[in-house]
Amino acid sequence: MADTEILMAAIRCESNRIDAAMHADLDELAVTMDGLLTEILRYGLFNGGKRLRPLLVVLAARLCGRSDPAVYNLARAFEYLHAATLMHDDVIDNAETRRGRPSVYKKFGLVAAILAGDFLHARSMAIVGELAGTEALSVFSEATGRIVDGEFLQMRNAADLNLLEEDYQRAILGKTGHLIAAACEIGVIWAGRGTEERNALRTYGTHLGCAFQIIDDLLDYQGEKGKTGKAAGNDLVEGKMTLPLILAVHQADQEDRRRLQEILADAAHRRCAFAEVSRLIEKYNGFSISRRKAEEAATAALSQLDVFPDKAGGQEKAILQGLVKYVLEREK
Amino acid sequence: MADTEILMAAIRCESNRIDAAMHADLDELAVTMDGLLTEILRYGLFNGGKRLRPLLVVLAARLCGRSDPAVYNLARAFEYLHAATLMHDDVIDNAETRRGRPSVYKKFGLVAAILAGDFLHARSMAIVGELAGTEALSVFSEATGRIVDGEFLQMRNAADLNLLEEDYQRAILGKTGHLIAAACEIGVIWAGRGTEERNALRTYGTHLGCAFQIIDDLLDYQGEKGKTGKAAGNDLVEGKMTLPLILAVHQADQEDRRRLQEILADAAHRRCAFAEVSRLIEKYNGFSISRRKAEEAATAALSQLDVFPDKAGGQEKAILQGLVKYVLEREK
Repeated sequence: MADTEILMAAIRCESNRIDAAMHADLDELAVTMDGLLTEILRYGLFNGGKRLRPLLVVLAARLCGRSDPAVYNLARAFEYLHAATLMHDDVIDNAETRRGRPSVYKKFGLVAAILAGDFLHARSMAIVGELAGTEALSVFSEATGRIVDGEFLQMRNAADLNLLEEDYQRAILGKTGHLIAAACEIGVIWAGRGTEERNALRTYGTHLGCAFQIIDDLLDYQGEKGKTGKAAGNDLVEGKMTLPLILAVHQADQEDRRRLQEILADAAHRRCAFAEVSRLIEKYNGFSISRRKAEEAATAALSQLDVFPDKAGGQEKAILQGLVKYVLEREK
Repeated sequence: MADTEILMAAIRCESNRIDAAMHADLDELAVTMDGLLTEILRYGLFNGGKRLRPLLVVLAARLCGRSDPAVYNLARAFEYLHAATLMHDDVIDNAETRRGRPSVYKKFGLVAAILAGDFLHARSMAIVGELAGTEALSVFSEATGRIVDGEFLQMRNAADLNLLEEDYQRAILGKTGHLIAAACEIGVIWAGRGTEERNALRTYGTHLGCAFQIIDDLLDYQGEKGKTGKAAGNDLVEGKMTLPLILAVHQADQEDRRRLQEILADAAHRRCAFAEVSRLIEKYNGFSISRRKAEEAATAALSQLDVFPDKAGGQEKAILQGLVKYVLEREK
């Protein structure tokens, strides 16, 4: 318990520094920028986000021996890109809320959500190119391309009863894993370290991202709205085939499978079948197997950290280990 | 007339090479990319566009003494970014058609238009960073930021009767001028030339872009659908305050001004008042003054080319001069 508290205090401290770097950037931009755009960016960026991606840049860089504060200027690019994808996601998913508040889309409208996302997207790439060089930019833009690819995959996968676990894995890699991996890798590049460290931290990030997304998808069924800030069951309403559901569909007997098919095929059905689908997932251990898969990903992430001696980056290594645990245990 | 034919032939030849570079890139991407995404990119990119922006990169680089064919790989980034902004614009404007065909938005839907735009956006920045370096990337992303700023301005300006010509100028700079200027400037950077050439070609691009946009806005009132590929009067329906209208509003007597106010204030009104508004603009010379302003911008663009001796880049200089003339005379 004390360990968790120390971890959370360290994370809070880093988050504050990342936020400060973003505030400084926006203040500077505000001088020449349309006032409404500034307001939207502030609203979209400062919303109680966990700052996981920029935090990973900071930790990776420091673990690799570079610890000057300019890392926060680089790190903010990852929160910008993340926020940009959320703004566009909210349009795509027609989402009413984001972290318990109206989404940028609902508060400021379609035009604002698209354009502010575009602005942050451009800004994030410019920062990475300028501060970390073109090799880092190439890793970063590759991740962006993969996010889009993952979204297409998810769209194509919607309500598809024959979806395989591999399809799900590819979609969550695109949606979450690649950018988290890129955050780790670009921290290493920025610190000027070589292939071994790059591979290790990129792989750490990939597994961490997968664990993160599986837990996210579990929380969509099992989370409490008071904690997650969103109503449970969104994914089902949208026909998203997440891991618990995929596992249940594959294990289900003929009758249950037919029933799931019936529900999934019809948007109106999906809206009122949350309890029933949850029961069916439970019946076929979809939740417990999903959690086990998240734990396996977490273990794989942890093992990558062996490359780094405990001494070298004592605190950073401990935080990276702690983050894995945190991702598994989080309730929001 | 013979001059124009030579110019058009040269432009067609360059366009084909730019298209070939884009095709090669998409073929390579298609191997790992979602098939639907590939299809959307092809549809959105190969649509009879004029390739003005990539053409300027090629011409600027060659005028500055660098003429290896890798310039086409760099140049395509500008068509990617342009196409990305059009895809998002069509969502924002709810546009049915683009160049006489269904827009990406109408053909493939909202999700596709947003995501394919995001993909091209990322790809364009990665190309500029990789091939032309971080200084070029910074010019490029500055232009992207300005596009967004220009869109916000345009949104804010809609149906605003008190809009000044300066507001219009800033909006069209953001929307068109900055990216065209960036294409010219990045061509110079890529060729490794200094401040004088950079300033001259950037300023050339800024003025060319303004002339281009003023003519675009004139064509929205005076163009023939058979040539432009879109119905006249779109801007009025959307309440866009373009130069002809701004000039008319400022010149109009009290009664005509009241009438324009009445029309602009109401979307239903705007939809059926095209002939009447056109007459009022005509009455106050809004069209002829706009055309004169476009010609002034064109002259300013041409004068920037004096920096370059005729000998040095004979053909390129002639094409850059010819482009200015073409922009003024175009009917689509």
